[in-house]
Amino acid sequence: MLAISAGDPAGIGPEIIGKCWAARDAQSLPGFFAIGDPRAFQAVWDGPIAVIGDPAEASGHFATALPVLPVTGNAPVVPGQPDLDGARCALQALEMGVGLARAGTVRAIVTGPIAKIQLQQVGFNFPGQTEFIAEACGVSRLNVAMLLAGPSLRVVPITVHIGIAQVPAALSIDLIVNRARAAAKGMARNFGIERPRLAMAGLNPHAGEQGSMGSEESEIIRPAIDILRAEGFDITGPLPADTMFHAAARARYDVALCQYHDQALIPVKALHFDDAVNMTLGLPIVRTSPDHGTAFDIAGKNRASPSSMIAAIRMAGAAWQYRQSYEA
Amino acid sequence: MLAISAGDPAGIGPEIIGKCWAARDAQSLPGFFAIGDPRAFQAVWDGPIAVIGDPAEASGHFATALPVLPVTGNAPVVPGQPDLDGARCALQALEMGVGLARAGTVRAIVTGPIAKIQLQQVGFNFPGQTEFIAEACGVSRLNVAMLLAGPSLRVVPITVHIGIAQVPAALSIDLIVNRARAAAKGMARNFGIERPRLAMAGLNPHAGEQGSMGSEESEIIRPAIDILRAEGFDITGPLPADTMFHAAARARYDVALCQYHDQALIPVKALHFDDAVNMTLGLPIVRTSPDHGTAFDIAGKNRASPSSMIAAIRMAGAAWQYRQSYEA
Repeated sequence: MLAISAGDPAGIGPEIIGKCWAARDAQSLPGFFAIGDPRAFQAVWDGPIAVIGDPAEASGHFATALPVLPVTGNAPVVPGQPDLDGARCALQALEMGVGLARAGTVRAIVTGPIAKIQLQQVGFNFPGQTEFIAEACGVSRLNVAMLLAGPSLRVVPITVHIGIAQVPAALSIDLIVNRARAAAKGMARNFGIERPRLAMAGLNPHAGEQGSMGSEESEIIRPAIDILRAEGFDITGPLPADTMFHAAARARYDVALCQYHDQALIPVKALHFDDAVNMTLGLPIVRTSPDHGTAFDIAGKNRASPSSMIAAIRMAGAAWQYRQSYEA
Repeated sequence: MLAISAGDPAGIGPEIIGKCWAARDAQSLPGFFAIGDPRAFQAVWDGPIAVIGDPAEASGHFATALPVLPVTGNAPVVPGQPDLDGARCALQALEMGVGLARAGTVRAIVTGPIAKIQLQQVGFNFPGQTEFIAEACGVSRLNVAMLLAGPSLRVVPITVHIGIAQVPAALSIDLIVNRARAAAKGMARNFGIERPRLAMAGLNPHAGEQGSMGSEESEIIRPAIDILRAEGFDITGPLPADTMFHAAARARYDVALCQYHDQALIPVKALHFDDAVNMTLGLPIVRTSPDHGTAFDIAGKNRASPSSMIAAIRMAGAAWQYRQSYEA
């Protein structure tokens, strides 16, 4: 069984989880249960729910109902209207799911979308779920990596949620090396790619064009690549970012390491907007999530697409399988 | 007739121009002649060449041979081996083509790929052909815009060939407004889109997320958008750059204005690597070019694809037609 934290109860999380359960056979999904407020599911979805008291009960219900391990709020759930009660539920579901994954009770956690602004008001002091989960697993943020993976492109941003003006100073040889190691190991553990081909983007246009448009390539990125190559990694770069994402270029690597958020996310979302998956690499557990937010504007309107959540569930199940053979 | 400057004689320019001529009927291309060293064509292409002494002779030959207005070097042409003699020829062909377009002798200039390093050694003091042509036409660099256009996406980078660290300081309300005006007017004159929908990207991840990841959106980009909207432009933004390039998002605008080189070029090259065209907006003349370089590594091997040059010729011809009705 996989655990899916429902995310914000007023967001599209409950609806798309219900739709995933309905698609479980057509999509050959591995078994899962949700962690969240059962009322949030009932508010937006007509399908059958089985409230369970223990994760062990989930597999007995999965064929006939969506098993829900309840985390119940006090206030009524109104789709599209986030509140602090809902944020508390979302956080509790996330914590519970991470705990179950760490204990080995579930194979993986798939996290539904949360509302950062509300969560911060209930004491959530992290840039996102990724950093929270890293800390909950006792792993330094520097040693995890955010992977965005679509059918034809996987990318890891080296810096993530900082402004462009902060990017050059935030880049260091250490950071790049750590992210690349996490990316490479993550390919082996979660995707069965034993010797992954890494492609490293430059920071500047044309990868700096021999220093005429920036020195970060020569001062930071190349030295990091040299270290990684000396460690035995199969790595190319720094590559001009604009010519590394067409089909023929993508075929030359398994994962692209990008220097900043949009350098990574522009191509993967341009190509795979509906079915890209966010996976955290470097954790002791398998964690994936759909690559979209709470979408409060369409919550409760039966308009949310489960495609990315379906891909996230499938990728989590597959990653767990790959880990069995990797660790065996 | 269109004029095509051959670019560096040792690059793939002559080969792809020859291939375009061979494809003139299949691709329904408008008539054109090349400006360059006839020996560069003969070295890499078996097709018929008609050396002409005046552009007026081109149309009489176009059905049976590639008309070439000669700009001849002193040294032999060796494909794949650029030299200063070739750079001088490339520059002379470019100057001649711009002059013919300004005089109205040709409808447009399509520029073949040049080698910047060699050109700089013969006194070419511009970041690229775009800036050279702007100056040759008496237009300030601030008032032209580089457009990259593929079948499903057109982008204009607001800053272009500078390092990422320089981008925040290079952005100004004036620059953004000027580029957006050039983009909007360019859509009307060259594409027949009278009231273009402009989409403006933010600079930072999530367009700054209410200022938590950068203040450029509130201090520079939003004020620029306000000015443009007050002038009557149809403009949206600042948009998170990572969610503005999938198919459904692209359908909502005619041209995307991007804050820096890779923000614009990553998506257009990921989606349209083989057939994106570079067009300079804001000029009194029509100028397009293929969206690739000299590719010295494959020059003379009959491996270069003419797709982007074909698209550049077609777009130049269409732009000239649109301008006739726009200016009528």
